[in-house]
Parts: sequence; C-alpha cells; structure tokens
Amino acid sequence: MSGTLTIVGLGPGAPELTTPAVSEALRQATDLIGYETYMARVPLIEGQLRHTSDNRVELDRARQALRLADEGRRVVVVSSGDPGIFAMAAAVFEAMETGDAHWRALDVRVEPGVTAMLAASAMAGAPLGADFCAVSLSDNLKSWSTIEKRLVAASNGDFVLALYNPASRSRPHQLARAFELLLRWRPESTVVIFVRAAGSNDAKLHITTLAEAATYPADMRTLVIVGSSTTRVIHRDGAAPLAYTPRSEGSRP
Amino acid sequence: MSGTLTIVGLGPGAPELTTPAVSEALRQATDLIGYETYMARVPLIEGQLRHTSDNRVELDRARQALRLADEGRRVVVVSSGDPGIFAMAAAVFEAMETGDAHWRALDVRVEPGVTAMLAASAMAGAPLGADFCAVSLSDNLKSWSTIEKRLVAASNGDFVLALYNPASRSRPHQLARAFELLLRWRPESTVVIFVRAAGSNDAKLHITTLAEAATYPADMRTLVIVGSSTTRVIHRDGAAPLAYTPRSEGSRP
Repeated sequence: MSGTLTIVGLGPGAPELTTPAVSEALRQATDLIGYETYMARVPLIEGQLRHTSDNRVELDRARQALRLADEGRRVVVVSSGDPGIFAMAAAVFEAMETGDAHWRALDVRVEPGVTAMLAASAMAGAPLGADFCAVSLSDNLKSWSTIEKRLVAASNGDFVLALYNPASRSRPHQLARAFELLLRWRPESTVVIFVRAAGSNDAKLHITTLAEAATYPADMRTLVIVGSSTTRVIHRDGAAPLAYTPRSEGSRP
Repeated sequence: MSGTLTIVGLGPGAPELTTPAVSEALRQATDLIGYETYMARVPLIEGQLRHTSDNRVELDRARQALRLADEGRRVVVVSSGDPGIFAMAAAVFEAMETGDAHWRALDVRVEPGVTAMLAASAMAGAPLGADFCAVSLSDNLKSWSTIEKRLVAASNGDFVLALYNPASRSRPHQLARAFELLLRWRPESTVVIFVRAAGSNDAKLHITTLAEAATYPADMRTLVIVGSSTTRVIHRDGAAPLAYTPRSEGSRP
C-alpha cells in the first residue's frame, strides 16, 4: 500500500469554519499527528491512531509523519488555522528536505484552512481590506532584531499589520515593545484591534488606539491587528464598533 | 421583520473549500448580491433573489446590499476567497459609514473564507511559512507609487510577498514592472511562484526565479508569490517541485 501525508488546517476554532476538504481528509486518515489541543477538536473515529504531542518539537513531529507515510499509512498532520501560516506545513517540508532522500517521492498534500487573521478581521469588520503584512512576534525561531526590522519595514510601507503569537507566559513583554517601536513610526491614534479566540464561540473583540494598546492583555490565543494610516472605526449606538481599511487610498469619508 | 447582511467568502474555487458556515448563510438568504462569476458558483435555491453585477461598482453593490437589509431582507454579499482580503467587506463598511445613519444599526456579519494566497501556498508547499505581506498590484484604487513604496518596504523587511491581481487586460505591464523593481532589492535566484486558479480543479503551478519571472504569463486569476531570502525549493524526481519558507531563520539545510 502506498502511504499519503496530508497537512490540514482545522480553521480558527468553530467546527463550521473547517472546510469539507479537511473534514474528508480527517475521515480517511489511519493516523493523526498533532498538538493535543488541536487534536481535541477532531471527532474520534474508531481504529484511527492518534499521535499527540505538545506545542514544541515541530520537526520531530514532522519526521514522525513522514516516516509513517513512508510505511504506507494515510497520515494527517493537524494544524489550527491554515497549515501554511506559522504552522506545521513548513516544518514538514523542512523535514522532507533534510531527511531520507526517498521521502521526496511521498504523496504529500496541504489542505488550506481559514487562518486566525481572517477570522479576527471578520469579527472586527474589514481591517485587512488593503495591503497588509503578517508577522509572528515569537522569537523562538528568529531573532528579535529580525522582528523589529519587519515592524519598521511594515510601517514604512504603511501596511496594516497582523501580529500572530503576540505574547506567551515565557514572552510577556514583547507586544509592549512592539507597540513602543510602532509608536515611533505611526501616530498614537492608529487603530489597534485585539481578537482573542477568533473564529470560536468565545471570541472576544477589543478596538483601541496605539497610544492605549499596551495596557490591554494579550496571550497566545490573541491576534492583534495594527491599522495603517487609512484604517477607520465606525462607532455605533448599542452595538460594537467596526474597523475597516478602505481599498481605495482616496477614500476619506 | 429585521433584516440581516452577511458578507461571505466562497473560498478559492472548489466547493469543498467553502466553509459550512458560508454554505449555511447562503441557504438562509432571501437575496444574493455579487459579481456574476462568483454567483455562478452558488447552488440555486428556488425563491431566492439574485442581484448580479460586473466586477466594478463595488460601492454601488454595497449600498444596494445595505438598502435591502434595511428593508428587512436576509442579504448575503458573495465574494470569492475571503471577503476581507481585496474583496467586498471593506466596500460594505465604507458604504455603511458614508450612507444613511441608521444603516449603522443593521445586523452585519462577515463570514471568513480561504483566501487565494492560502490555496496557492498549499499547492506550492509552504512558501508563506514565515512573515509575509499581501499586496494588490491593481492601481484602480491606489496609485502605482504607493504600490512601489510597499514592494520596496516588503523587500527591506525580507518578507515573502503574495501579489494579488498581478495583471489584467487593462494592466498588462505592471507585474513586469514589479519584478524589475524587486530585482533591485532581491537576488536573481529569489524563488517566484505562479499559481493560476488556486484551489480550483484546474489549478496550475509554476515555480521559477526572479530573473526568469517576467517571461511567464499571468492574469487576474493568477496569484504570484515572491520568496524571501530563506525561501527554498525541493526538487523531486517525477513529481512537481515544492517551495517552502522555513519558520526558523537559522534553518539552512
């Protein structure tokens, strides 16, 4: 039997945001591999093997997936959101390139999903409506100076910024440092959006300004969007405000 | 009866990439509004009204949607991909902000979808695996100088670049101008990926270099990804090459 390896994205949280293509891949799998928190979102199927792990050791997990596929299993690697955005797909390809030469012949596929910034943007309105950048604030895999360079470059380009992994218990201060840096380049009135648990049933939205942003709490489940010079807020009586970035740079309502 | 307005993203093309949440919103609608090419992808439901239009006049379409919701209809605005990424959501909020004051009280929601760059990235491997920017090359809504400023900024930040709307019949030369500009900042060997009709059944992948990229054709259905300094290609005997960007900047296999 010829094995397969499919790297899927479950979407941001709610089951109705998982694509039918991903659900089908999960049903066909003989083996699931992934971080236990994401695996808990996958319906149990009798006879299917589950190889859970914690959130680190991505390359080990990737090698295990390639080995199992090489043995003829139908393996699915489970990511949250989209597997190609700050998730498992890049780890699998790195493991493939650096591993056994015949792993390159394996039948490997990526099934896309709704990544967190899309769900966060949808909840807030349309803040990613114009050109934007996505930056992970985690310095586990890159240096803080690279992150700073990218925040400055994004500011110079007047991009909207989507910040993934803004803070964790081991990195509590980086988001505040990022805001401090951005304040040198963007006005205090810049729109800043926090969405926690975007695209899940307990999602929470907070819209504020860059001047105030550092006082608001964030964790690994928070997605932060920093507006460009044209991002706007619509205030509404009795309803949550909405934020959007006009597609046209000439739009100044 | 109280109307609703839901702005949905159908995903990139294949029906199995449309989220169940979007399919349900489409089933519940009394009125659909959208570009005829996207509307053709939505299954017909008896009694449901369809208001089709061409690909321009986004603000007119948005105002019509708000008016119908205000009259008590359950309106769904149909976008391809994700409605918040170079699509209709921003137009609806702009129409809301500049329109009748009581439109702000309407029940408006955005249902996210798989945007084209995620499907293109999945087909190519994982080229968006590290920090990236998304830029629309269309200068219908912004000046070419703004686009150039953003391409330079993205290069200074060593971001991967996802280029939406790279070319159309009325803008045949802009992608070549973009490549020319990028060549001043990035090496000739930079990985460039073309995916046409990403996430649909006739999707087509081409992986090349920045030196060669200008000779390859692109149109409005093409998504172009320009790699960062760390984006790599895995060559495979008898199978299409794969491209990925390692999450770790230290990865140099």
